[in-house]
Amino acid sequence: MGVFEITVLGSSSATPAYNRNPSAQIINLNEHFYLVDCGEATQNQLNKFKIKSAKIDTIFISHLHGDHYLGLVGLLSTLHLNGRTKEMHIIGPPELKDIIDLQLKVSETQLRFPINFRATQVDYTEVVFQNNDVIVETIILNHRIPTTGFIFKEVTRKRKINTEKLSEYDIPLEYIPLLKNGIDYCDKFGRTIANAELTFAPKPARTYAYCSDTIYTEHFLDQIEGIDFLYHESTFLHELLARAQETFHTTALQAAELAKKANVKQLMIGHFSARYKELDLLLAESQSVFPNTVLAVEGQHYSL
Amino acid sequence: MGVFEITVLGSSSATPAYNRNPSAQIINLNEHFYLVDCGEATQNQLNKFKIKSAKIDTIFISHLHGDHYLGLVGLLSTLHLNGRTKEMHIIGPPELKDIIDLQLKVSETQLRFPINFRATQVDYTEVVFQNNDVIVETIILNHRIPTTGFIFKEVTRKRKINTEKLSEYDIPLEYIPLLKNGIDYCDKFGRTIANAELTFAPKPARTYAYCSDTIYTEHFLDQIEGIDFLYHESTFLHELLARAQETFHTTALQAAELAKKANVKQLMIGHFSARYKELDLLLAESQSVFPNTVLAVEGQHYSL
Repeated sequence: MGVFEITVLGSSSATPAYNRNPSAQIINLNEHFYLVDCGEATQNQLNKFKIKSAKIDTIFISHLHGDHYLGLVGLLSTLHLNGRTKEMHIIGPPELKDIIDLQLKVSETQLRFPINFRATQVDYTEVVFQNNDVIVETIILNHRIPTTGFIFKEVTRKRKINTEKLSEYDIPLEYIPLLKNGIDYCDKFGRTIANAELTFAPKPARTYAYCSDTIYTEHFLDQIEGIDFLYHESTFLHELLARAQETFHTTALQAAELAKKANVKQLMIGHFSARYKELDLLLAESQSVFPNTVLAVEGQHYSL
Repeated sequence: MGVFEITVLGSSSATPAYNRNPSAQIINLNEHFYLVDCGEATQNQLNKFKIKSAKIDTIFISHLHGDHYLGLVGLLSTLHLNGRTKEMHIIGPPELKDIIDLQLKVSETQLRFPINFRATQVDYTEVVFQNNDVIVETIILNHRIPTTGFIFKEVTRKRKINTEKLSEYDIPLEYIPLLKNGIDYCDKFGRTIANAELTFAPKPARTYAYCSDTIYTEHFLDQIEGIDFLYHESTFLHELLARAQETFHTTALQAAELAKKANVKQLMIGHFSARYKELDLLLAESQSVFPNTVLAVEGQHYSL
């Protein structure tokens, strides 16, 4: 099973605070690198944690509050100066393209690499990216401005052939592609052998959901049901529930409740308010409802 | 004499490198704070060096290459979240206003403080800001896109009264404001006493010029003649003169030659290319022509 790893580059909400940077995460799936959100100074964080920005081929931006995208144009500009020619996929709100275009125009910069921009929308969930490794679907969040989360679903691998059984039943080699796709064997005499007897199940596809920023809502519960790893914003402690609601954010307790209701395997909380110097109370609050909670910590890797 | 101090927040050109950040400097003149350029992560640098961003009331942006302004909207947003209501003066190229407006619009942010924006132009030098402490004039630089430097001239103080001489000559108190302005005393009998005998000269006004980015040019030599402190970009060593010219930048040797020709008192070089891990060769090259050169170093204070 290949690597599926999240590295947190920023865990702060709104402003940098206590060495926490605004939102950004790197997802490494089979050595392909995806950047999710890109707060100011994300390129400094990549340098600090020795992640090669040249490896990033796809960038997802959840929404256009500055703490989620202000590092993007600087990063693109650095990639350009470093000689990148490979296409960059950018997925985000439609106005993001206007912002990039305006900033490139005023600096009279003609990027050496093409940008393949795909606009997100918030009317319905859709697949916004896919390749051989992953399918990425939006999650419609409920924030002050249009915002989507993203769910990364590993592409299901094909079944593995049990070569001993193939010999035993004397099955012709040309059937292998069908068997790998889960189809039962049936010979010209009508004899049927169940696929499960001839193949091994592949490793289950792993899933990661990124939900930032949003007020507490259960409307996407179905989408995250049973997933391996959920990142959910937890800007405040529950004692500040009124403030969370007013600003369309979530408390640590609420994030834990959602994780529990959705039966996810593990929860990461982040997007912490600058009022919290220490994060232990946020962690304890979440763990009181959902024990398998971890904190988003800059530079830390989380493996699925 | 009040404080006149420059603090370097960024000395890197184009991209962050070796813990050097893109361009930004804080000028503290009599405890009024001016920010000159605002590369990405300038707010992190302010935090790091414990400079209160709330104290900044005026921001000057030289040009619209990202390494000189990409930290601006993040900084404004943080000031807004921290409750600022005081007006902010921003002086920079006209398109900077479009960029700020677009980014505030998409985030649906209505700043709590007014922005007083003044557009610079590059047809002629002009005074773009003045108050009781300082007059700021643009310097027309020659870069790939419209770029201005800024010269900060301390406002000349009034002359100080020599109270002993006032008694000696029995001069009425109502003449003091005239004497402070350098006017000779003349009584009703036609008796004249030279101002110099009745007052002391004020401390000379200090001057600081910020010149980044530009190809080597002497066309603003008159403007910087004899000033106290010159910051001039020195992106490359002189062995890369061709590269400097091609990209409209200056070498360390050229910056030193300019400082020498202009008879400035001290030179600070900065805006170093990411190719230089160590800066000692750049310093040595400049000092070979202009000994009183210092390097721009993040977090360092330079007093005039």
